[in-house]
Amino acid sequence: MRVAIVTFDGFNELDSFIALGLINRLRAAGVQAEIASPSAQVTSMNGVTITAQQPLEFVMDADAVLFGSGIYTRAIAENAALMDRIVLDPTRQLIGAQCSGTLLLARLGLLGDAPACTDLTTKPWVIEAGVRVADLPFVARGPIATAGGCMASAYLATWVMWRAVGREATRQALHYAAPVGEKDAWVDHALKVVGDTLGESATP
Amino acid sequence: MRVAIVTFDGFNELDSFIALGLINRLRAAGVQAEIASPSAQVTSMNGVTITAQQPLEFVMDADAVLFGSGIYTRAIAENAALMDRIVLDPTRQLIGAQCSGTLLLARLGLLGDAPACTDLTTKPWVIEAGVRVADLPFVARGPIATAGGCMASAYLATWVMWRAVGREATRQALHYAAPVGEKDAWVDHALKVVGDTLGESATP
Repeated sequence: MRVAIVTFDGFNELDSFIALGLINRLRAAGVQAEIASPSAQVTSMNGVTITAQQPLEFVMDADAVLFGSGIYTRAIAENAALMDRIVLDPTRQLIGAQCSGTLLLARLGLLGDAPACTDLTTKPWVIEAGVRVADLPFVARGPIATAGGCMASAYLATWVMWRAVGREATRQALHYAAPVGEKDAWVDHALKVVGDTLGESATP
Repeated sequence: MRVAIVTFDGFNELDSFIALGLINRLRAAGVQAEIASPSAQVTSMNGVTITAQQPLEFVMDADAVLFGSGIYTRAIAENAALMDRIVLDPTRQLIGAQCSGTLLLARLGLLGDAPACTDLTTKPWVIEAGVRVADLPFVARGPIATAGGCMASAYLATWVMWRAVGREATRQALHYAAPVGEKDAWVDHALKVVGDTLGESATP
């Protein structure tokens, strides 16, 4: 399973790298997350320049595609030339977004009338785009999921991992990354947040 | 206040970027975190190449220095030429580390006989280096702090922020980044973990 973490100039490091770091805990199980960008290099909102691992068009080949947020997302959502390069297929892909990334899913027509999550700053723009906003950290409906708040990136990652390898393998991978001394509580919470919206139990 | 996030080849993205993303929520308050590396570019454990914002020697000028973990840390700890470039002064700097980064603080002679945090994989090597390991997410003693588990990076960041701008300004900055719908609980928990070890209350 290959996962594209769509990353534009001005990107929020928390969104792209929490998802990337957590999902790649499953690399030995054949799940790999990579940064996909419209240019060879992109620079984060705090000035860190990174080299893309994949071109933006990788979103068409990937089995899962995640959109983080960034300081230029409103401009990106209105950039038809750029948005036309993002061709997704929810019948065979998992598609997730968080914070201002949710605006891109709205622009791509992927949210329908389901409630979606975003951050407090983006909320009015997402509502303006005709989307109902849920004041929740994470919501999934079928192949589409959204999260709100930078640190909710961990829930998007958990969702992709759960869908890729199941709950118990996800639990094990998250356990490694969770804080020492509070691993069980941390992992149980992430699985509960995601499991609640999947309608599945977080425990065996 | 300037913060160096020391980042080597093979670095763990969660460690470097969670700290960077959270601490830079205080940029408007004059607190800035930057990636400091021994070469112009470094590549993460999952293959993401980033351009350093500062040379490694920035650790001498910075007011706070954080060491994340990575897959080559044991080799780095034994590389005298590299370690000699890291000159720190705990009488005027905050110094923190997590997971295998704790091994570097041990090698720099900064841990003394205080208990330190690290991850489960690094634990035997840290013990071998003569350090007592605490099975806790975070411990601070004076200007030195350690954390264990990738996601405990948020606690190291919280500690730097608290020491830089105080608890309430830290609460506000963390609130922005916390997951929607669980912001208060998330922030209270981070402040409690850090406050407990500072011997300070997490609430006004």
